[in-house]
Formats: sequence, structure tokens, C-alpha cells
Amino acid sequence: MIAVDWGTTNFRAFLLGADGAILDRRAAASGILYVEAGAFAAALHAEIGDWLAGGERRVLLCGMIGSRQGWQEVPYLPCPAGAAELAGAVAEVAFAGAETRLVPGLTTVDAQGVPDVMRGEETKIVGALDALDGNGLVCLPGTHAKWVRLHDRRIAGFTTHMTGEVFGALREHTILGRMMRDAPLDIAAFDRGVARSADPGGLLHHLFGVRALGLMGSLTEEAGPSYLSGLLIGTEVRNAVTSGATVHLIGAEHLSARYARAITACGGTVRMEDEDAAARGLAAIARSLDWL
Amino acid sequence: MIAVDWGTTNFRAFLLGADGAILDRRAAASGILYVEAGAFAAALHAEIGDWLAGGERRVLLCGMIGSRQGWQEVPYLPCPAGAAELAGAVAEVAFAGAETRLVPGLTTVDAQGVPDVMRGEETKIVGALDALDGNGLVCLPGTHAKWVRLHDRRIAGFTTHMTGEVFGALREHTILGRMMRDAPLDIAAFDRGVARSADPGGLLHHLFGVRALGLMGSLTEEAGPSYLSGLLIGTEVRNAVTSGATVHLIGAEHLSARYARAITACGGTVRMEDEDAAARGLAAIARSLDWL
Repeated sequence: MIAVDWGTTNFRAFLLGADGAILDRRAAASGILYVEAGAFAAALHAEIGDWLAGGERRVLLCGMIGSRQGWQEVPYLPCPAGAAELAGAVAEVAFAGAETRLVPGLTTVDAQGVPDVMRGEETKIVGALDALDGNGLVCLPGTHAKWVRLHDRRIAGFTTHMTGEVFGALREHTILGRMMRDAPLDIAAFDRGVARSADPGGLLHHLFGVRALGLMGSLTEEAGPSYLSGLLIGTEVRNAVTSGATVHLIGAEHLSARYARAITACGGTVRMEDEDAAARGLAAIARSLDWL
Repeated sequence: MIAVDWGTTNFRAFLLGADGAILDRRAAASGILYVEAGAFAAALHAEIGDWLAGGERRVLLCGMIGSRQGWQEVPYLPCPAGAAELAGAVAEVAFAGAETRLVPGLTTVDAQGVPDVMRGEETKIVGALDALDGNGLVCLPGTHAKWVRLHDRRIAGFTTHMTGEVFGALREHTILGRMMRDAPLDIAAFDRGVARSADPGGLLHHLFGVRALGLMGSLTEEAGPSYLSGLLIGTEVRNAVTSGATVHLIGAEHLSARYARAITACGGTVRMEDEDAAARGLAAIARSLDWL
């Protein structure tokens, strides 16, 4: 079968064997943002047409491809949910004569009645369940970072933090960015930002501090982006982790390394999980569909 | 004498009588952002040349005109400081044969050693001292909102919150803005945002909630900007005000009204101060210079 993780900015496809093993893979920068509306079938065919020609008849997709801006909207499924619940709610879509299904996203509601949503991460988490013993706290860093509570191999609830996107907006579109220069990660400045996030005053005040430190000669233009990153990730982590908690990280290495530093600084313990979780999660859902 | 409040985006000038009363005034959208470097003298002459021709020989200016991006950089003066300290640190600048001085900005350092800065607000506060009895907590809403502690008619310390600029960056340059439509203030949505800022999870999480509420049909595109405004102002206020505190507000009416609502919701008491504080502050500093 063919497993596809199709997000806002990235496309990743896996050719899976009957045991769920990854036989082949490909990646492209053709996230749904870059595909014209209505052209999803053609875009998918361009990427995996040779696998179909080779005889594959089943395609399972997860990610923003199932959103309102994607191929076809699949309603959010409420938590708690695991592989079986996700498999029970897949949506059918017409594609090249193949049996093709979209995995739904998840929604949760907090104690105050405010909803949260995810689309794509639920599948990665299902794929990581074996490594996690099915319980614990999982963090998926990113544009919209997710903190997910697992219970008995199901997703019990989660919170999203807009950290990555807020970093980009502040870096590119505020006065803070005008005092910064792109440079490799400055670990000392990052740690200093993480430490600052523990101080009183709140994030909106600490953000202005980035400017004040620069004006007073205490932060260079090259160290600025690293300090801002540490401040934002530190703020997120302090709100998401209680001291002593173990956090399982799933994500790209460069970003997970930053989160690991911040989590450790905040008293948490980190276990890194690998990045092929999406393929394993799609295989697990496919097993619930009796496709594997 | 002539008193000038020259900020990043606005220019306001006052013709003052010997008793400090405002005899005439003018305002223009010619903030320092819109004046070519080196052209400040010409720009000022274009605005107040007729007052000089009428015999005025003294000009006192405050605001970002004294910054690195302005006419001439005047170093920040450390807190605590009042009218006398500000008068003692004015900088001379050559202009049309008139005695012309720039008021310095202020800097403070918090308990953790992190600096903060202001330039322009110190003068408004000096102008409001009589109404405030010289003690208490003052809030000046804006792009970079200031919270100022007064003690014995001097500014003891302050914190800046980047609330206004963060609102703009989020509204214009993140996925949140794509789910919003410009509309008049929706008071109920604003109050709902203020209330949300009291919940656990932190601002970065609550920001994503704006999107989740929209996706789940619980927040309209028209109510979105008001909710986001309430969330940000509420977050700022909760970090700056302790319950039961009296806050003196100095600022534009539409924004002060929002702050007043949020401060009251957070248990503070509001007293509104009028907006001509800059002219009165420049008059007070001028008295220390023996100009009045």
C-alpha cells in the first residue's frame, strides 16, 4: 500500500510492504499550500504514479490534505481516539481507480470549554505508540507545536502552541526583526532566552526586552534570533510541562534539539522519538482497516 | 515657548504661554519615520516657522526625535527621574537660531538585570503628575504599552509590553488573520478574549485557540479581531496589575476604553487622565530649565 503524509508545506509518501515496512519513500516541497485547488489528484499522481503503475491499489493519506483547504474536508474526530477510532472515521476520495482514504484530524475541549484541533500529528503519535508504551506526554515541535497526553494507547487530549508561527511573524514583521541578523544558532543566547521566560512580567513584556537589550548593547544582532527562539520555546515549555515530567519528542532534529534543551532547563526529562512515525501510524491505521 | 512631542508616527506642537497654558497647537502625520534623515530641521521649520517668525526663541522637544533614528541621539537617563533630572540632561541641537533642546528618554533595570527603555512617555507622565498626586501606577496603552510606577513625583521604574505591535503582526502576517474580517469593536468578543487570558495554558496556546474557535464555528470572522485584542490586552493587564490596584490611564480614547474594561475585569480600578499631558510635561521640564 501507499502511505502519504501531506501537510501544509511538505509532502512525504511511503511504499509499505505487507508487514508495514518502508520499502521506498519520496519527499517533495509540494505541500497543499503550493497545489492549486482542485489539482490534488493530479499532484498526487505526479508523485506516486509509478507505484500505482507497479500494481499498488490502496492509498491512505493524513495531514492537512483532509482540511477545508485540502482535497476534501474530513470532520475532526473527538478525543479520546487511537488507531481504531481513526480508522473508523476515514473518508473516501476518488483517485485513479485506487481505494483511497483520508485520515481525520482530532479535536479536544479543555476544562474551560475552549476547543483545540490537530490534523496530521494524530497519525505520527499512533505510529510512535509502541515506543511510548501507550502512555505519557508527547511534544511535536513545529509551526503549531502540539503537546499530547496519551492514555492506554489513545490520545486523551492535547494543547497547541503557535510558537513557530509567532516567531516568524515577530522576526519578519516587527521592530525586533530590524535589530537582528540571520546567523547560526547561538546556544548561550538561546539558553538566556529560555531562562528569561521564567521571570515575571509575561511574554509581551519579555518581547520588548529583546529590543531593550539590543538598544543597551547587551544583545548582538546575530544573537537576537537565538534569544527570541529561546524566549518563545521557553515560554511554551513552562506552560506545557510540569517539573519532573518525561516528554517524548517527535520532530525534525534541529528543532527537537532546541526543545530538548528548554525542557531539560525547565526540569523535564526528554526521550527522542524518530521521524518516520507518520509512516508507522498510517500502517497502524491501515491494519485497523484490514489493508495490512 | 514652543513644545513639541515628536514620535515615530505623529508630530504634535504646542505654543505655550508664560504660565504654560496652551495658546495654539498643531498636529501632523509627519512622525520621524516619514522624515528623511538629515531633514528634521527643515521639517520642523515647515510646521512651526510662523511661530518663530512671531518671535518665539525657545523650542523643547520630546519623543523618538531624540533616538538613534531621530535628529540627534540623546542617551537614556536612568530611573528614578522626574522633571528636574530630565531638565538636567537635555541635549542642545542647532535649529534656526532658536534655543532648542531635546528631552532624554529613560531606562530602568528589573530585578533580573534586564533593561527597559522609554522615549516620550516620560514627558507625558511628568505632565500628569499633578493629577496623580505624584504616586501610583500609570498605564500608557499603545504599540509598546508602558506601565509606570511613580514615587514622590518621580518615575521609579516601568515595564513595556509589545501588545499593540504583536497584535498587528498576528493580524496581518499569521494564519489567524486569514480567519478575520475588519469590523467595529465587538465588546462581547473582546470581553471573552480578556476572560480567556486568565485560563491556564499560556498566550502561545491561547493564540492557537483563536483559530480553533473559528474552525469549530465558535468565533465569527468579524468577532475575531476583537477577541484577539481582548486576549492580548488581558494577558498584558494580568501581568502588570495586582488585583485592587488603581491604574491611571493616559492615552487615546478608543484604546484607553479597551484597557479600562480589561483592568476592571482583572480587579483593578481605573482613573482616566487627559491626553494633553505631553504639553504639560514639556512645560514642567521648561520650568526646571527656567524657560517659564
